Amino acid sequence: MTTTIEPRSGTAFKLGKGQFLEVVDPQGQQVSDLLAFNAHDTAEVISNGRTFDYADTIYLTTGHVLYSNRSNRLLEIVRDDVGTHDFLLTPCSQDTFRLLYDELEPHQGCFGNLAGVLAPFGITEDEIPCAFNCFMNVPVDGKTGKFSVEAPLSKAGDTIVFKAMMDVIIGLTACSAPKSNNGSFKPIDYIIHDHLDDVA
Amino acid sequence: MTTTIEPRSGTAFKLGKGQFLEVVDPQGQQVSDLLAFNAHDTAEVISNGRTFDYADTIYLTTGHVLYSNRSNRLLEIVRDDVGTHDFLLTPCSQDTFRLLYDELEPHQGCFGNLAGVLAPFGITEDEIPCAFNCFMNVPVDGKTGKFSVEAPLSKAGDTIVFKAMMDVIIGLTACSAPKSNNGSFKPIDYIIHDHLDDVA
Repeated sequence: MTTTIEPRSGTAFKLGKGQFLEVVDPQGQQVSDLLAFNAHDTAEVISNGRTFDYADTIYLTTGHVLYSNRSNRLLEIVRDDVGTHDFLLTPCSQDTFRLLYDELEPHQGCFGNLAGVLAPFGITEDEIPCAFNCFMNVPVDGKTGKFSVEAPLSKAGDTIVFKAMMDVIIGLTACSAPKSNNGSFKPIDYIIHDHLDDVA
Repeated sequence: MTTTIEPRSGTAFKLGKGQFLEVVDPQGQQVSDLLAFNAHDTAEVISNGRTFDYADTIYLTTGHVLYSNRSNRLLEIVRDDVGTHDFLLTPCSQDTFRLLYDELEPHQGCFGNLAGVLAPFGITEDEIPCAFNCFMNVPVDGKTGKFSVEAPLSKAGDTIVFKAMMDVIIGLTACSAPKSNNGSFKPIDYIIHDHLDDVA
């Protein structure tokens, strides 16, 4: 069953150990910020630094594991149509829009959307770390360290599939930042599967 | 007054808004993991992602600001002899040594050292994020995303100086990971100054 996350919004749900989460970019060139917390102790949370420590790369794709701040395996990427995602940057927020976009009325962004949907699970704003930003295209210049946020390489229907390595709470958005998705706000779809064979 | 952090250990202290922290590599090729928390509300903490968001680079040096998870300015780098530091990776820990070094008796690492010295300030292990790793040399290949931990470029006596943009609690180590410091464990010195002119 496909669920749609409307443009500039977010959702949160439980994913059981061994289940699969398929994140779909239905129209192409859209970003989805993903967070994961240990469902039984939400102080354990996805960590870009721990993941980089063990992956030896900042570009993550099929076969890479997303680790928690306690060095436990939260999710494994088991399929990936795109191969280009970001794990350096934080969910866009009111501050992002104020500081980077100079918007008169800053949107609450993925950060505000995630904070809203995670609050019922007892997760506070301060506990929201860097997200794994599905389909976000942030090439880094290795010589200077400078990066830019470019249009995603995802085409309509492209997906990334994660396997839950423990019971997790997932936060997931259809991104709100113009730079991330080539200037147009689009939905994100997701499907939970019990078996990898069920993925189309 | 110079304070020495002994090899493979750490310390924590308060730094007042407007004060300067000079971190010295007295022997050269040693790494110092630095954490910063809002002294009046330790749920506000240094964030690599927010810092990257606003710096547009993953390599930080003089003039760059280290931001908190609430997008506030914690520290500004005001002098830097070396120009090569890391903000991608987490403090080395028992898990790091278990997973990356295969050590029979894993050292508690910078993570354990920081957890120990920050506990009296009410900061828990789960609240320790990616550190700003002074002098740590982690070149990234922009094409593949792969990185390696190389010997620091710091020479004996090289320093980096931070200005506190708010009252902060600092956690600071002499790093415990063989890869970070070219295989030998050395001390780190630090000095707190009230005026930038006092920095030698």
